[in-house]
Amino acid sequence: MKHNFGAGPCILPKSVFEEAAAAVIDFNGLSILEVSHRHKDFVSVMDESIDLVKKALHVPAGYSVAFLQGGATLGFTIVALNMMREHKRGGYLNTGTWSTGAMKEAKKVGVDAALIASSEDKKFNYIPKDYAVQDDLDYVHFTSNNTIYGTQFKQLPNTNFPLVCDMSSDIFSQVIDVSKFDLIYAGAQKNLGPAGATLYIVKDEHLGKSSSPFMPSYLDLKQQIDKESMLNTPPVFSIYVALLNLRNLIENGGVAEIEKKNIAKAALLYQEIDRNSLFKGTVETADRSLMNATFTLQDETHAAAFDLLWKGAGIVGLPGHRSTGGYRASMYNALPIESVQVLVDVMKHFESIS
Amino acid sequence: MKHNFGAGPCILPKSVFEEAAAAVIDFNGLSILEVSHRHKDFVSVMDESIDLVKKALHVPAGYSVAFLQGGATLGFTIVALNMMREHKRGGYLNTGTWSTGAMKEAKKVGVDAALIASSEDKKFNYIPKDYAVQDDLDYVHFTSNNTIYGTQFKQLPNTNFPLVCDMSSDIFSQVIDVSKFDLIYAGAQKNLGPAGATLYIVKDEHLGKSSSPFMPSYLDLKQQIDKESMLNTPPVFSIYVALLNLRNLIENGGVAEIEKKNIAKAALLYQEIDRNSLFKGTVETADRSLMNATFTLQDETHAAAFDLLWKGAGIVGLPGHRSTGGYRASMYNALPIESVQVLVDVMKHFESIS
Repeated sequence: MKHNFGAGPCILPKSVFEEAAAAVIDFNGLSILEVSHRHKDFVSVMDESIDLVKKALHVPAGYSVAFLQGGATLGFTIVALNMMREHKRGGYLNTGTWSTGAMKEAKKVGVDAALIASSEDKKFNYIPKDYAVQDDLDYVHFTSNNTIYGTQFKQLPNTNFPLVCDMSSDIFSQVIDVSKFDLIYAGAQKNLGPAGATLYIVKDEHLGKSSSPFMPSYLDLKQQIDKESMLNTPPVFSIYVALLNLRNLIENGGVAEIEKKNIAKAALLYQEIDRNSLFKGTVETADRSLMNATFTLQDETHAAAFDLLWKGAGIVGLPGHRSTGGYRASMYNALPIESVQVLVDVMKHFESIS
Repeated sequence: MKHNFGAGPCILPKSVFEEAAAAVIDFNGLSILEVSHRHKDFVSVMDESIDLVKKALHVPAGYSVAFLQGGATLGFTIVALNMMREHKRGGYLNTGTWSTGAMKEAKKVGVDAALIASSEDKKFNYIPKDYAVQDDLDYVHFTSNNTIYGTQFKQLPNTNFPLVCDMSSDIFSQVIDVSKFDLIYAGAQKNLGPAGATLYIVKDEHLGKSSSPFMPSYLDLKQQIDKESMLNTPPVFSIYVALLNLRNLIENGGVAEIEKKNIAKAALLYQEIDRNSLFKGTVETADRSLMNATFTLQDETHAAAFDLLWKGAGIVGLPGHRSTGGYRASMYNALPIESVQVLVDVMKHFESIS
């Protein structure tokens, strides 16, 4: 039994893995891997996937959903291309690696990525809160959860500009009000499905309004949505597994129910991080992520001993991002609280023998 | 038992489906769907996949291989962005839908897509052969096999300009001399693996030489290759299945061996199309594709009767593309000659009872 605390691609429900494996062998008589994306059996997979995204997140009328490829990294480009208007200027809240990347890619397609606020002064260990927003922006962009530093927005940025969010690492983990957003995008490989698909939820009024002189069809959300995510061959298997996972989510009470579990899991671990004399959290308490808890040893020389313990307990994926070091316990939807308890028990045991 | 003549995503070897399904349940103790792309187990999958592409196609030194996402449609953009030089002009051989799309997307990123030759005058039922190539091009682009019309280049375009090829539907089906090409790209979902990955084979001297003022990181082959296809989370499962399929290809004698089988399969079907009084091929004989045999009934009023027969024999995926009608028998690497024989037998039987 392994406890997968990896930051993504990450754990999904066991029943989803089992159904996915079965479909690789037999999906209405063929392998899901050899089914034409134009066949009615896959068209209905795509339709149901889009419907269940809308259902799970209570997406209001006037929004469309699409599945593309390329991850959030290509999303950085897609966002800038699709949301640029007269100012050719987007405002960015910089909470670390992913926001920094989003700004870099916006500039590469001719958008002036204006910094609204940054937490770089403290190694991104908090979420900026008091800031003024420029008054000539086409949109405001933020990353709802930073997987590397372990920070998460608890309140939306306060702005009247169209709000764009890279929600890759916490979408479907908590209740959100989609009507507050103009464009949400998310790589699938955390709480949606396996790597290879990227979800877009966009307010229809923004489609086809770009001021970019440059708009490849693949990157044009209007064309993608007009073609119902079938502009070209979609990532069939990734979308199918996302569908299985969405069905599982909804059968188990949906996002509201999983949010409660995620809060309980995070509370269990953060309490131990704060209580245990050998560890310390790396993020300001108010800004701690429910998905990725980052922490370090008070004394790094104990790392080898601690590593031996958690590995012995079947835990995998606990090391921090290669750019930060330390530890990171990613607690995505499918990670059971029992796995968090195993980690907490290891931390307690480590304290008792130290 | 189904005989999958679908045009793609298409049939792969049964053992590949079985190994892929097993890995969805257990890949070194985790599901392949929850493995981090940074874990050594997946890094070795990526490395071996790249190595086996080079081995299968005898890729010479001085070329690099990358796996991206977005299919050939995003590839149309990537090609134009990466190959544009001083002229900002690429020459295109137009053999149908895919080449037309490649030209359209090149124009969208500021490349003058110059038409070298087209077979549109005869509904793309042949490959243009006698033409002059302009003298101020940055590259020449062609689509080696047209899945919709069923045509295939038997000789490379005669040019000294860098040669770019969309090889989506016949890569790995026949021996090619990679040294004649400067950039090859191919959606995976025919003879490489499932949908969701796109292969690029590029001559290193072309990396980082673009004249485009616009170059998103994801679309920059230099960055993708510098990062060993790990600029961001790659399509883990699609690449893993491609690896399984490449291993299978090489274990069974490689591309040289599968080419013999593909020639035999195509010969069997085309002979019947030509012999059978009820059918006719739609493509000039010299330009017939080994992968996609297109044909029609001499008398379209017999369609319902013929359709009943082949469906009854377990054949799927035989209807022609929605833009052409008629029939299309796609005979990719994994389709056994026994399936072609079933189709031929159905055609003979249909003639005998008509």
